[in-house]
Amino acid sequence: MKYKYNMLITIMLVLCNLSINRVHAQENDPLFIKNIYENILTESKCFGWLDEMCNTIGGRLSGSDGANDAVYFVKNKLESLNLDTVYTQALMVPVWERGDVEIVKNMTTNKKLNCTSLGNSVGTGAGGVTAEVIEVQSLDELRALGKDIVNGKIVFYNRPMDPMKLNPFSAYGGGVDQRVYGPSVASEYGAVGTIVRSMTVNLDDIPHTGVTVYADGVVPIPALAISTNDAEILSNDLSKGKVEIYLENYCQNKEKRESYNVIGEIRGTTYPEEIILVGGHLDSWDIGHGAHDDGAGCMHAIEVMHTFKNIQYKPKRTIRCVLFMNEENGLAGGKKYAEVSNAASEYHLAALESDSGGFTPQGFTCDGDTTHYKEFFSTLKSWEDLFSPYGLYIKKGGGGADISPLKSQKGLLIGFKPDPQRYFDYHHTSTDVIGAVNKRELELGAASITSLVYLIDKYGLRDDR
Amino acid sequence: MKYKYNMLITIMLVLCNLSINRVHAQENDPLFIKNIYENILTESKCFGWLDEMCNTIGGRLSGSDGANDAVYFVKNKLESLNLDTVYTQALMVPVWERGDVEIVKNMTTNKKLNCTSLGNSVGTGAGGVTAEVIEVQSLDELRALGKDIVNGKIVFYNRPMDPMKLNPFSAYGGGVDQRVYGPSVASEYGAVGTIVRSMTVNLDDIPHTGVTVYADGVVPIPALAISTNDAEILSNDLSKGKVEIYLENYCQNKEKRESYNVIGEIRGTTYPEEIILVGGHLDSWDIGHGAHDDGAGCMHAIEVMHTFKNIQYKPKRTIRCVLFMNEENGLAGGKKYAEVSNAASEYHLAALESDSGGFTPQGFTCDGDTTHYKEFFSTLKSWEDLFSPYGLYIKKGGGGADISPLKSQKGLLIGFKPDPQRYFDYHHTSTDVIGAVNKRELELGAASITSLVYLIDKYGLRDDR
Repeated sequence: MKYKYNMLITIMLVLCNLSINRVHAQENDPLFIKNIYENILTESKCFGWLDEMCNTIGGRLSGSDGANDAVYFVKNKLESLNLDTVYTQALMVPVWERGDVEIVKNMTTNKKLNCTSLGNSVGTGAGGVTAEVIEVQSLDELRALGKDIVNGKIVFYNRPMDPMKLNPFSAYGGGVDQRVYGPSVASEYGAVGTIVRSMTVNLDDIPHTGVTVYADGVVPIPALAISTNDAEILSNDLSKGKVEIYLENYCQNKEKRESYNVIGEIRGTTYPEEIILVGGHLDSWDIGHGAHDDGAGCMHAIEVMHTFKNIQYKPKRTIRCVLFMNEENGLAGGKKYAEVSNAASEYHLAALESDSGGFTPQGFTCDGDTTHYKEFFSTLKSWEDLFSPYGLYIKKGGGGADISPLKSQKGLLIGFKPDPQRYFDYHHTSTDVIGAVNKRELELGAASITSLVYLIDKYGLRDDR
Repeated sequence: MKYKYNMLITIMLVLCNLSINRVHAQENDPLFIKNIYENILTESKCFGWLDEMCNTIGGRLSGSDGANDAVYFVKNKLESLNLDTVYTQALMVPVWERGDVEIVKNMTTNKKLNCTSLGNSVGTGAGGVTAEVIEVQSLDELRALGKDIVNGKIVFYNRPMDPMKLNPFSAYGGGVDQRVYGPSVASEYGAVGTIVRSMTVNLDDIPHTGVTVYADGVVPIPALAISTNDAEILSNDLSKGKVEIYLENYCQNKEKRESYNVIGEIRGTTYPEEIILVGGHLDSWDIGHGAHDDGAGCMHAIEVMHTFKNIQYKPKRTIRCVLFMNEENGLAGGKKYAEVSNAASEYHLAALESDSGGFTPQGFTCDGDTTHYKEFFSTLKSWEDLFSPYGLYIKKGGGGADISPLKSQKGLLIGFKPDPQRYFDYHHTSTDVIGAVNKRELELGAASITSLVYLIDKYGLRDDR
């Protein structure tokens, strides 16, 4: 009797367990995600790695010794994780060197301004450049002035980033044409130099560098950013009368060099041909340590691999961590990666980029080719409830610069979006160092990304799979 | 003919306008809220005021000169806004003085630990206290050890705040009993002193002060917090053998003094008897400048008044800004305010407290007496869509310490909830200074609060009004 009774219980438990198992595939997700968060908040290595990279290597401008050291630094970290593959991918990068001296001096008031040369720009060389300044608020205003007025002058672009924009990235998008295209247009109109108001809504003394691009056939002219406080002062000085500025710097573009993307992957058990990429860019500007831009994104990506190994999660799909070289001044890494991937007929089901800093996560934005975009996005959107305890949204929006060349593979491109409010306090400045990064905020970003990658791996993005 | 045609157009426009006006009462809200945000992001004074208060006054512990100066500082700011009334409300506050010397020294290793006396605690006086240390993880563990073991010892409470808790305020809630009640319980069991692990999940060298409370009849014993790094080291030292600690400090409780809540209001045009309170606490701990705790909350509250005046909004209900004294070590201000309000038969339809720092806003939590709570909360919840562009939630949860005595008036109690991740980097430490506050994050908090106060004022909270 007892035996039969036990037998019955066993059969009931087995049946019960079978049905539970089928349902739990979904019901366990909140618990699994909680486990990812707890694991990362207690056992992650991302903050320690970032601290080490910032403080032992520092800036990592493409082609520099720092960038080279960083390649081996992250390769070693990936190798320590016992992944299925870790390798580098060679590519050619532009080499721009800042030089030691950077001077923007108001000759009328005899005061030096806080400045930094713009990436890819040319220097004045010895002797410098002295000329009268004209202030404009936009490229169009400069064009309207015409060659007669602009010729022989130093052009001062001074349109502030719009503080009314809730998201400072929108304000940046609305102002950065002055830095990227302003010097080239100024040269076309006969200017001998350019100074640009730094890209931040803050009023402070910190100059922000960043890339500038000369159009084909345009004679490159010196181009430097000045701090927002100094931009305000210069504008005020100009309101009182003519101002002469002296520029002196020695930056130069040199021959391209070989550099590398760094790649590590865990091969999928069931659909190895479906790649889920998670990445950031390894290069940074030279004047800070690229802690938020984009050391944070690199460490987010490596932490996904570390955590999957740490919790012994075996992905169905191939999870690939890619640390791109040369996002800041060329995008050579992103282009090379897509070129090699396309040549190998690879398919990226999803690619997620973290390049908005290591702040408290707020959500993800999605982009992609129209072919499957609607279907893929609605799959992601259906998981929003799983993320609501963590305050994360899923929206349409940009993926990221490095993954953008993958769009032709028709997968989903995802941008990780942390709190944007402090990003332009540090962006492209000497203050982008580890002290600006909060350990828990960085970890929460890694946990958010790992959780999303887990869901994409587990369920795919198609309705029928 | 032309006249008649014009007449027709005019009549149509008037009719059209009438109907538009009725609908636009709701449709205009997103625009009005956008206007509040834009106004505060460009014309607010909250950050400048906070900078000034922190850097000219600094710490504002109840009964101190700093607290006194702060009363007049914020009173002057409120008076500058041309409100209908600005006044102070007298109350008695405890006076605790830290003294100049604070020493926690490991006599076994001969090393000093980073420490800070706990508020309301007593000092060792000259000669100090030397005794063997026993480490416990909880009050219950101490009780289980019993008087024989605890007697004559220094008790070391070392349970860390739980890093797995997503919200550090929950982790704080789970650990702070050691600081608040630990010294009193240790004394009951015969201890001669207490040291408490600082309340933060970080591992660093910064000690965190905060209030401790001795139960009635218990002999007060010295109580100091040590930094988390030093707590780890001490615990490690204890794992190797017996450790003697030397304590020396001179803190003391003095006679109560008179101090003040500071109040400013704009009287409502239609329902002046319905008060909407917005407030923070003016006092702070003495070792920092109370920038986040709770200078930020005070400036949020004053900014609501400034913005309503600046955009010339005339509220239907009475908007009252209250800056409470003595939240940190007694709550005398909050209690006094409710007592006076009850005696005058006032009614607070809503009271909103900002006391979680000046970080990027995430939402509001609501509490209240059961009488109207469900109705009031669902009204607030119905506005969540208006806040979704700003990433703000409306949830059930705590209001705040200072407004809690108002619960008996049966209005809605609302807590402002900014990003909590960095709060316990600064909470009750020497690092809670203006440099830890981001201008835009503070402004976004003020804009969020002002927008919610606007909606409560415009629509009330009842279904039928």
